[in-house]
Amino acid sequence: MKLLEDKILACGKVLPGEVLKVDNFLNHQIDVALVTELGNAFYEHFSLYNITKILTVESSGIALAFAAAQRFNVPVVFAKKGKHKNVGDNVYTCECFSYTKGTTYDVTVSKDYLTKEDKVLIIDDFLANGAACECLMNIIGQAGAELMGIGIAIEKGFQPGGEKLRRQGIDVQSLAIIESMTGSSVTFRG
Amino acid sequence: MKLLEDKILACGKVLPGEVLKVDNFLNHQIDVALVTELGNAFYEHFSLYNITKILTVESSGIALAFAAAQRFNVPVVFAKKGKHKNVGDNVYTCECFSYTKGTTYDVTVSKDYLTKEDKVLIIDDFLANGAACECLMNIIGQAGAELMGIGIAIEKGFQPGGEKLRRQGIDVQSLAIIESMTGSSVTFRG
Repeated sequence: MKLLEDKILACGKVLPGEVLKVDNFLNHQIDVALVTELGNAFYEHFSLYNITKILTVESSGIALAFAAAQRFNVPVVFAKKGKHKNVGDNVYTCECFSYTKGTTYDVTVSKDYLTKEDKVLIIDDFLANGAACECLMNIIGQAGAELMGIGIAIEKGFQPGGEKLRRQGIDVQSLAIIESMTGSSVTFRG
Repeated sequence: MKLLEDKILACGKVLPGEVLKVDNFLNHQIDVALVTELGNAFYEHFSLYNITKILTVESSGIALAFAAAQRFNVPVVFAKKGKHKNVGDNVYTCECFSYTKGTTYDVTVSKDYLTKEDKVLIIDDFLANGAACECLMNIIGQAGAELMGIGIAIEKGFQPGGEKLRRQGIDVQSLAIIESMTGSSVTFRG
């Protein structure tokens, strides 16, 4: 998606360790017009899938998921990280490894908000190793719900997550796929 | 706001310890049409304030802030809780006490995204003791920015936060103010 690629080139910063910093417009400060357009793009791709729920994980996925859900006219459920006093015990839980932070954390979704009737679209800001997606897929499996696809803003194409998911036959729609990051320059796939 | 009050009566749950659980529609599962309307209501109230930025704190405030920002056509900045590897050291930080969890945590905003030119609207899902708002106000103060008002979805009117803020002359717009919660029943102010 040219709009997103241009924004990454204009405002993204490549940091050591193959980190792409996009907190100018995606995951700390949010460019609301841009993210609304990203939500539209997810809708265009997945609109025929009869999605009933959009699932993401706090915090960076919420705005993206919300923008998409406005088009699909379905609820967002955002999985919570760590223990939450008000969530209770009636939950699906999966342990997730964060490559960014080098730690594991629990991801939790209330059983009230994901059921076997749900056709679920996962949305997240980044796809790298695929750990967060696999964790959400595990939770969808626990609920007996159906995964319809995965919408990602920025995929690090040089890391294995995207290929791993597509090899399972999952429709993964990444709006920008980074082929490589060298020094301060970013090259997109395609 | 009748729409929100009706939703609280229909879907909110009163738990021991004066906890109002609204994770059915506000802070775990999100009723996207409702939250879009709450964003509109914030815009109607604050539209003449020349807001340049909406500030909230992850995670529950993000969808609300995003919905409002779509109307104001300004960026959202969501403050981060705890330490974040990718945020760096160029930050404003304030320690915040969570009455819900009984712990303190750091709230952090990059200096890049809040400056003395900004006229800031704070948006959050709940106002009870006012700790989160005071923390965001502290950060606005560090940035030399100007606080224009505070938009809240649900205020617990029987707790001191709202009165404390209004006594300072701040325009606090709460879309539903709970006067009391007894047993399983909720009474609204006004």
